[in-house]
Amino acid sequence: MMALPRLVFIGSGNLATQLALVLSEKGYPVLLVYSRTEESAAALAGKINCPYTTDITLLDARADVYICALKDSALQAVLSQASFHDKLVLHTAGSVPMDILSEYTANYGVFYPLQTFSKSRPVDFSNIPVFIESNSPENFSVVKSLADSISNVVYEADSEQRKKLHLAAVFACNFTNHLYAIAAKIVKENGDFPVEVLLPLIDETAKKIHALSPLEAQTGPAVRYDKNVIDKHLEMLNSDKDVQQIYDLISKHIYTVNGMIDGTVSKERG
Amino acid sequence: MMALPRLVFIGSGNLATQLALVLSEKGYPVLLVYSRTEESAAALAGKINCPYTTDITLLDARADVYICALKDSALQAVLSQASFHDKLVLHTAGSVPMDILSEYTANYGVFYPLQTFSKSRPVDFSNIPVFIESNSPENFSVVKSLADSISNVVYEADSEQRKKLHLAAVFACNFTNHLYAIAAKIVKENGDFPVEVLLPLIDETAKKIHALSPLEAQTGPAVRYDKNVIDKHLEMLNSDKDVQQIYDLISKHIYTVNGMIDGTVSKERG
Repeated sequence: MMALPRLVFIGSGNLATQLALVLSEKGYPVLLVYSRTEESAAALAGKINCPYTTDITLLDARADVYICALKDSALQAVLSQASFHDKLVLHTAGSVPMDILSEYTANYGVFYPLQTFSKSRPVDFSNIPVFIESNSPENFSVVKSLADSISNVVYEADSEQRKKLHLAAVFACNFTNHLYAIAAKIVKENGDFPVEVLLPLIDETAKKIHALSPLEAQTGPAVRYDKNVIDKHLEMLNSDKDVQQIYDLISKHIYTVNGMIDGTVSKERG
Repeated sequence: MMALPRLVFIGSGNLATQLALVLSEKGYPVLLVYSRTEESAAALAGKINCPYTTDITLLDARADVYICALKDSALQAVLSQASFHDKLVLHTAGSVPMDILSEYTANYGVFYPLQTFSKSRPVDFSNIPVFIESNSPENFSVVKSLADSISNVVYEADSEQRKKLHLAAVFACNFTNHLYAIAAKIVKENGDFPVEVLLPLIDETAKKIHALSPLEAQTGPAVRYDKNVIDKHLEMLNSDKDVQQIYDLISKHIYTVNGMIDGTVSKERG
């Protein structure tokens, strides 16, 4: 059996943390963690029992794979200061083309797990889709082994496809979470009920689309453009014009999309 | 032990179906199901083994409680044709004031479960918040017994509060589901991946807010207003101006809301 590649993590945020934890559990040696922020570097290094640095020019040269899990805006600035000795460098960003890495090394690729991560929430990687890409068949097989070792759902995706997956994820995760925030605020302002009253509804809404397509699962006043309810809701949002506009826009879009594909199904209550 | 009240269901849609199923399981005698649509009435009546009618003037007069689970727009038209002999009449609508029932009977109330229902998906009612209201203490105790018999989370809510809960539910459920639909469409148009790649992300997004508030859980390019990514995404949505506008509006609103409350937390990857 070949020795597993030795890793260096560049970044110690949400994704870096979870990825370092799971790969280290799977036996990959992590030689070093880099982060600009000492506290954050030390926290991750402590969890996986390895050294850390806050100096990007001091990366461990013995690594086989450098995994850069940084925010997009920091990526190039950090990479341009590092030396990779033409070792394999991976980034984990949805919307950054793979080729930006060609400036820094001859061997590169992308490792993009389609999931939202927190430092404190452990995740089961086994069912998380990982989208990978690489600049050569040899590098691809290294990235694929890494991905296969933690997930059962690994796809090859080029940078264009990955960008679209990231866009889809923004709707499915970031924007969805923001709707939760708006809903929670409305419940809170209502006074007498804990925001937790929303959780069963939120859970069921997510579970439902395991069995139905989201178009089939759509319920609520907007599907039938129930003007009476919609107008009342818009009026209730008078004091928050931004949220009112979001309500108006999404309602109209639901009616446009679901009205076109589904004019007949009876929806007695959403 | 007192005999359980005998029920008549007016409506046979998603909520009527699930509510009739659970109450009938709990031992409540269901005397009759009414629906305008024979197929739908027969389907529900078959499930709980009771007669049905499509003639609203032929409601069983022996019932103690009439539960109207109809779409808002049909409610008053149907009620105005029925005879309730001043028995207890409940509606199940989020945005309909209780008092509209006073035209039809001297005894009335509201039974509003905060959940999304499908005819085909069984639900565990025990953790579903039910918001109830009634026009007298006697009627309230009947409604409360009904609610307590199926749910551990029963609240009294007046019509104003219920309207706001319904508005919150539209964001947390109906609009959220529509974001799933937009995300699924983007993945589908991308060609090579099944829409199921979104499910772990959707599930985790819902699970996360059991532990974190939605404001704390917020990730993604909009939190840090990453103009580079946001502009790319907006450009990708050029062919669908409505979705582009939804993207733009929600991104700005996330930045406004989360920027104000959380300017410091580092979010290395959403």
